[in-house]
Amino acid sequence: MSTSAEATAKKARLSGNVLKTISNEKRSSLLHKIHDGLKANAASIKEANQLDLQSAEKNGLADSLYKRLDLFKGDKFETMLVGIKDVAGLEDPVGKLKLARELDEGLNLYQVTAPVGALLVIFESRPEVIANITSLAIKSGNAAILKGGKESVNTFREISNIINTVITENESVSGIPSGVIQLIETRQDVSDLLQQDLYIDLVVPRGSNALVRQIKSSTKIPVLGHADGICSIYLDEDANLENAKRITIDAKTSYPAGCNAMETLLINPNMPEWWQVLENLVKTGNVKLHVTADVKSALLTKLQEANKLDEQLQSSIVDADEATDFDQEFLSLDCAVNFVESTEAAVAHINLHSSKHTDAIITENKANAEYFLKGVDSSGVYWNASTRFADGFRYGFGTEVGISTSKIHARGPVGLDGLVSYQYQLRGSGQVASDYVGSGGNKAFIHKNLDTSQVQLGA
Amino acid sequence: MSTSAEATAKKARLSGNVLKTISNEKRSSLLHKIHDGLKANAASIKEANQLDLQSAEKNGLADSLYKRLDLFKGDKFETMLVGIKDVAGLEDPVGKLKLARELDEGLNLYQVTAPVGALLVIFESRPEVIANITSLAIKSGNAAILKGGKESVNTFREISNIINTVITENESVSGIPSGVIQLIETRQDVSDLLQQDLYIDLVVPRGSNALVRQIKSSTKIPVLGHADGICSIYLDEDANLENAKRITIDAKTSYPAGCNAMETLLINPNMPEWWQVLENLVKTGNVKLHVTADVKSALLTKLQEANKLDEQLQSSIVDADEATDFDQEFLSLDCAVNFVESTEAAVAHINLHSSKHTDAIITENKANAEYFLKGVDSSGVYWNASTRFADGFRYGFGTEVGISTSKIHARGPVGLDGLVSYQYQLRGSGQVASDYVGSGGNKAFIHKNLDTSQVQLGA
Repeated sequence: MSTSAEATAKKARLSGNVLKTISNEKRSSLLHKIHDGLKANAASIKEANQLDLQSAEKNGLADSLYKRLDLFKGDKFETMLVGIKDVAGLEDPVGKLKLARELDEGLNLYQVTAPVGALLVIFESRPEVIANITSLAIKSGNAAILKGGKESVNTFREISNIINTVITENESVSGIPSGVIQLIETRQDVSDLLQQDLYIDLVVPRGSNALVRQIKSSTKIPVLGHADGICSIYLDEDANLENAKRITIDAKTSYPAGCNAMETLLINPNMPEWWQVLENLVKTGNVKLHVTADVKSALLTKLQEANKLDEQLQSSIVDADEATDFDQEFLSLDCAVNFVESTEAAVAHINLHSSKHTDAIITENKANAEYFLKGVDSSGVYWNASTRFADGFRYGFGTEVGISTSKIHARGPVGLDGLVSYQYQLRGSGQVASDYVGSGGNKAFIHKNLDTSQVQLGA
Repeated sequence: MSTSAEATAKKARLSGNVLKTISNEKRSSLLHKIHDGLKANAASIKEANQLDLQSAEKNGLADSLYKRLDLFKGDKFETMLVGIKDVAGLEDPVGKLKLARELDEGLNLYQVTAPVGALLVIFESRPEVIANITSLAIKSGNAAILKGGKESVNTFREISNIINTVITENESVSGIPSGVIQLIETRQDVSDLLQQDLYIDLVVPRGSNALVRQIKSSTKIPVLGHADGICSIYLDEDANLENAKRITIDAKTSYPAGCNAMETLLINPNMPEWWQVLENLVKTGNVKLHVTADVKSALLTKLQEANKLDEQLQSSIVDADEATDFDQEFLSLDCAVNFVESTEAAVAHINLHSSKHTDAIITENKANAEYFLKGVDSSGVYWNASTRFADGFRYGFGTEVGISTSKIHARGPVGLDGLVSYQYQLRGSGQVASDYVGSGGNKAFIHKNLDTSQVQLGA
């Protein structure tokens, strides 16, 4: 075990414990100061960013990646600064009262949101992300250890230095110690820190599926994120044809690399004109269909009957590899297609093959829709809407920490809420348990819920 | 990897997926049928229980353990039966609406509680626990794989057979498949199942610290429970002496083997008469004090000045092993004692040494109390109350699944709520993401929260 990783993790935990006690006013005010510091030091950040761009050029980085590195292209830098103020202005996620209960006279139980503690956040090379994550961490009262993609190392280092200078300069006023934000730079640092489950409470990986999978398999710390987004759409026998066409085109083709894109299309063969949905995917969306033998023979027959089978269609209908195609995220204009005979069968297929991200039913039949919404085990279950809506901004969460496919804690698109947990506060006046029934005494518990909107804790 | 473990785990997951769709009425009605089945078969359960008692006798089991095995001693069996009906009568934890938001006209987002999925529950030898866990699992819509202590294997097997007969007989009416409750019998089964993270969503170990620790270190599945209960009480300089005395006696001595018992006492030496609290622990509570050098010299001086230092006190004040005593759960009438100079120092000590279970401050000083409640990182943070209140029954949760010391999902005493998570339901009318701003379109999101009490899902 690396001593330096342990020291970094312990520093995060200890400074997080202090940050936890700081008021929202001071946390938000520090974010405004960080905003000002980054704004005032735009020149030195630009200089560091130039170094990264030069290395990228020297290393022959692809044009699209190069563009992502350039923090001063367009209004990216200004948008980054505005984002910090936006997060500062959000409602305080810490200290929210979720339950208030009178256990006995003068003995009240409160369930109150609290920061998770110490985060390890791993993200890609877009330089503006470091400011976003810093804001989210400080706003939610969590210490964070940050690791960004190596292509932006100079920019990250400069931004992190400025942030830490601001934090240190304001420590005597804000009470927030500099250890709340720490930058690490190597993959070895990451793998050492993944062993620090005593001090780190949550890992948030934002990056490739391979990265997330590797992190999940090498740590005992809970991971907030998703390795795969295998989203399915089920066309029920009572699907509206126009809805089916529009939604599948949107879900498959509007951003095929997105984790909320459709990868599997399940079709009830009793849906009239189902084949037109597939024809439309090929002709309008340029999609390659990976179809089972049943689908293939039925589809070719329908297309021939309608005199529609052209060369594009012929080359776009390929045999599905049934052992793998229904368990993979294509991230391209490919889609696996299968027949299912009922809503029950669709739900069973999805629960076995999906990655618990987002799955949709298209139907006008309310009973089938309700069964689907109850039966599917994923974080998002949709009725007559595109899976592409699975997104923190579209949900109105203000900002998105990630999309989680785990079954507990935070599921689906995660806003600031995913970075808090809760504590029980018990406020008494000298009560002891042995005075109560069940523990030798004769006092009875009242267990009366109080109106949380009327409670003012700490006032 | 064991094929049989995989089959068991997959069966749990698949039957859990069905159970997830069943109404509360049918889940609760099945519990009443299970109640009736167990009641009708009391004779065969008693026979099986006799076999376990005979083996216990043969193996020379300690008297206290023997008593726990006897399901027909006093009203234990009747209490077990009543418990099933009690759980059946609880409010449905599934399908609760936590958030309702209009994203756009005809496009509504709902956050709805849902079962976690498939549970692996490991528990001790008390035979009645199997009925309790079965009730909790079915009520919360989760499939469960059960492993009880080996001393009660015959009783568990008989009860499990009756439960599964009832489930099977009612399957055509209830829709609940028999795979929702499965009994396993060996430790090897448990360790094979701990590898089934694809199918099992949550492990709930109820047993010794060693068992929980071993489980936590050998699975990637989230574990709901606690290995240690290292609870501390801090006596602030403004502590009320009578409160301090009563609360420490209750917390240390009313049930020393409890995970919510006090293991560490932190004292602000500026508290007047602090030494009387320690004297009282020894004289009234028979507690052995493991004290640091500072505490020892100050305490002996105070006791001598007051002419109180007798033989019992002298032999009950021993040197703390500072390297270990503040990180261990004594589970006996022992207590580690240290001085801390301030509330901040107390919070820092607790955050470093406690097991995130429950910690208390005794003080009349509101500012210090509020700092403590905000600063301590444990699931329970108490002001002027005994740590022994950390208990699902005392919190009024109706029934207790366990006490969790994890930082995410369920914390502290966990009721049925800990066995549910949530899903996002999106109910639309054909909407696609690319029609909205930010994704190429020009429609704007409304993002208006709806009054959840006015929403009737599935109606």
